[in-house]
Amino acid sequence: MELLKTLCEIHAPSGNESAMTDFVLDYVKSNKSKWTVQPKVISGDSFQDCIILVFGEPRTAIFAHMDSIGFTVRYEDQLVPIGGPQSESGYRLTGQDALGPIECELLADDEGGLSYKFGRAIQRGTDLVFKTNFRESQEYVQCCYMDNRLGVYNALKVCETLENGCVVFSCWEEHGGGSVPFLARYIHHNYGVKQALISDITWVTGGVHHGKGVAISLRDRHIPRKKYVDRILEIAEESGIDYQLEVEGSGSSDGRELQQSPYPFDWCFVGAPEDNVHSPDEKVHKHDIECMIALYKELMAKL
Amino acid sequence: MELLKTLCEIHAPSGNESAMTDFVLDYVKSNKSKWTVQPKVISGDSFQDCIILVFGEPRTAIFAHMDSIGFTVRYEDQLVPIGGPQSESGYRLTGQDALGPIECELLADDEGGLSYKFGRAIQRGTDLVFKTNFRESQEYVQCCYMDNRLGVYNALKVCETLENGCVVFSCWEEHGGGSVPFLARYIHHNYGVKQALISDITWVTGGVHHGKGVAISLRDRHIPRKKYVDRILEIAEESGIDYQLEVEGSGSSDGRELQQSPYPFDWCFVGAPEDNVHSPDEKVHKHDIECMIALYKELMAKL
Amino acid sequence: MELLKTLCEIHAPSGNESAMTDFVLDYVKSNKSKWTVQPKVISGDSFQDCIILVFGEPRTAIFAHMDSIGFTVRYEDQLVPIGGPQSESGYRLTGQDALGPIECELLADDEGGLSYKFGRAIQRGTDLVFKTNFRESQEYVQCCYMDNRLGVYNALKVCETLENGCVVFSCWEEHGGGSVPFLARYIHHNYGVKQALISDITWVTGGVHHGKGVAISLRDRHIPRKKYVDRILEIAEESGIDYQLEVEGSGSSDGRELQQSPYPFDWCFVGAPEDNVHSPDEKVHKHDIECMIALYKELMAKL
Repeated sequence: MELLKTLCEIHAPSGNESAMTDFVLDYVKSNKSKWTVQPKVISGDSFQDCIILVFGEPRTAIFAHMDSIGFTVRYEDQLVPIGGPQSESGYRLTGQDALGPIECELLADDEGGLSYKFGRAIQRGTDLVFKTNFRESQEYVQCCYMDNRLGVYNALKVCETLENGCVVFSCWEEHGGGSVPFLARYIHHNYGVKQALISDITWVTGGVHHGKGVAISLRDRHIPRKKYVDRILEIAEESGIDYQLEVEGSGSSDGRELQQSPYPFDWCFVGAPEDNVHSPDEKVHKHDIECMIALYKELMAKL
Repeated sequence: MELLKTLCEIHAPSGNESAMTDFVLDYVKSNKSKWTVQPKVISGDSFQDCIILVFGEPRTAIFAHMDSIGFTVRYEDQLVPIGGPQSESGYRLTGQDALGPIECELLADDEGGLSYKFGRAIQRGTDLVFKTNFRESQEYVQCCYMDNRLGVYNALKVCETLENGCVVFSCWEEHGGGSVPFLARYIHHNYGVKQALISDITWVTGGVHHGKGVAISLRDRHIPRKKYVDRILEIAEESGIDYQLEVEGSGSSDGRELQQSPYPFDWCFVGAPEDNVHSPDEKVHKHDIECMIALYKELMAKL
Repeated sequence: MELLKTLCEIHAPSGNESAMTDFVLDYVKSNKSKWTVQPKVISGDSFQDCIILVFGEPRTAIFAHMDSIGFTVRYEDQLVPIGGPQSESGYRLTGQDALGPIECELLADDEGGLSYKFGRAIQRGTDLVFKTNFRESQEYVQCCYMDNRLGVYNALKVCETLENGCVVFSCWEEHGGGSVPFLARYIHHNYGVKQALISDITWVTGGVHHGKGVAISLRDRHIPRKKYVDRILEIAEESGIDYQLEVEGSGSSDGRELQQSPYPFDWCFVGAPEDNVHSPDEKVHKHDIECMIALYKELMAKL
């Protein structure tokens, strides 16, 4: 869980993911010698802050977004949300501007107005994120940004034994998207990939519970193609790994952008569920994480 | 009208269109020998559940979506809508899960919550559609899913004498889209096509009436390019076929995705109007259907 | 300011931009001999009503939308908005239908219903725009459609000395977009361009004031990539040109479509602020216009 903790501590709200990019590139460089297959590492200016790892002859791509929700400093002491953060007065926020490091307090008024409380003015446009408070118990891990540092963690764990597949680290998922279309284009054009798994974190609800296994989402605001999801369910069933079926009418993911891209991608969201969504206290059951990693290994081998 | 009735009976909500795909492919196979020109039939895994027919040297493409609105079974007895179905308690819904065929009743509470009433629990993720009740009178046809089985019917009728053109059967139109971008890409790249007609069904309103002819939409939520629409109006005017001009501020179609695709497509929605939109009782005047088919033949020849 | 006045008088609501296209093409033809570099002029049927000018070896593209907000005539005397016009009873609207030129009055009822008052019925689908009333003082220019005829004006001024770069005149920005994706595709494929500046007009607010210089938007509804915006800020700072930093949670531009296109474009909105947004009385400070042009020249040279 050290890796997960480290990931959760990296400042990378949507649009400002470069610290995550650097970390992931370093991690890959330091660890890939231990992996079963050496991936081709694709990044740099033509990929903005995104990264693509290509293992062997890929048929399926894992998409894990690196960005997090947060806040942008506006005028006076106002804040504008990045993505859809839970906003309660008293939450601690961190960031940095030209004057130095910042740790301030979030204030939310009754009309939904957001502001910060800090000893000095913060420079216009500075982005702030929840202060990290990583907690681990026998059964659970808890921190801000399980969504989606856990999706990144899962992807990196799968890399260890992956023989054929793409692993894509995307940006801006929490706020308007924009990287998945060109990433999809690249892997479709260069490798003919048209199957995807969305390595992301979903919600504990009346139908999806802590500790019951990884959630396979049959739909959210968007509806993946039934034929593809049925193949995933078949592989999941045969694997013996604990899984839960999710059906939602709202919420979306990198899958939305794959669906709407000019490339014929099938996609399915497969991820552990969390409580306290988009708050500093996102909580995930360790068993569900284990099931997520195990199922991804099966799916990447068999799809 | 036998063909239309058969089309209306096929279970194919957004994301699960494969039964329509199979039917259309079979229909084309069985009937194309009687058609003026033998089309190239493009389908299969790289096209998900979509179909493209290419006749001669295409300049214009007809887009007809195969999917319908419906409902997804969530947890307990809850339902989540697929697209924007009219939802009244008492509507009959049909579908199938691993335990067998389903015919159940829709319940809609005052807060917009949807559920089903059935003798047993239905499996999570099962999709349900309105029960078919096809009615035909001297003047009208009436059934669920005139939108858009009538658009598919129109396209298949136009195929009979089509010399040059693409006919595209798309998916997911009722729920988030996603197939039009890659279909547009394919026909633009391979055939240079950049003109489209949206074969879909619109609304009877204060300005568009039953029996007054096919509607040519000057705009809906999106605005097609005036230069292109003006050419369509010219051809319509010269043809002597009954038509009506529609102007709306809302509603959208496969045209939206063509508009926003990275290919310079002109598009115009041309279709018969219906009453009781998105309900089990969609009603269309036969004269408007005849005008729709006749005008499509003119437009495909002259655009 | 003669050129700006002329631009403001051209009838070109979203979807019907061809009069602007013709004007800009004529203007380029008549004036380019005086420009430092002769651009390649790209337009015609494959570009709908859009225009691309290519100077030298482009690294960065200026996007300036040619369309304006307005109104479409529906049934009876109803109007449907094009984009988001300010709508107050008494505003004068102009247009043309087959029966001749139109100057009528806008009526807005309490429920947001819009209609026109005119001596005769106006043909269905006719588009109307605000009547032009160009006003110039020592410090300000004021008229409808500063947004975005001023963005077009800025782009044409920058052309005079531009050595390397694309200048793109887009359509539909005010209403649903749709041209930027194929324009982005063209310049990315043919010239490898992946940097953009959005030449558009923004808002006077609590943080952005008349006469304080051109606004550089750090974000609106969408968030550009921080790395790219930081480079722009550096160049702006070094230039000594007056500029202001903008941070908004809403509003969008051609930048949105670049962000979401399947090409890895970086973008930043850089434009003068206006008062009385989307009304017949849009007002901009002349100093901010001068700063806008000056900063664009710097950015196009140094990015």
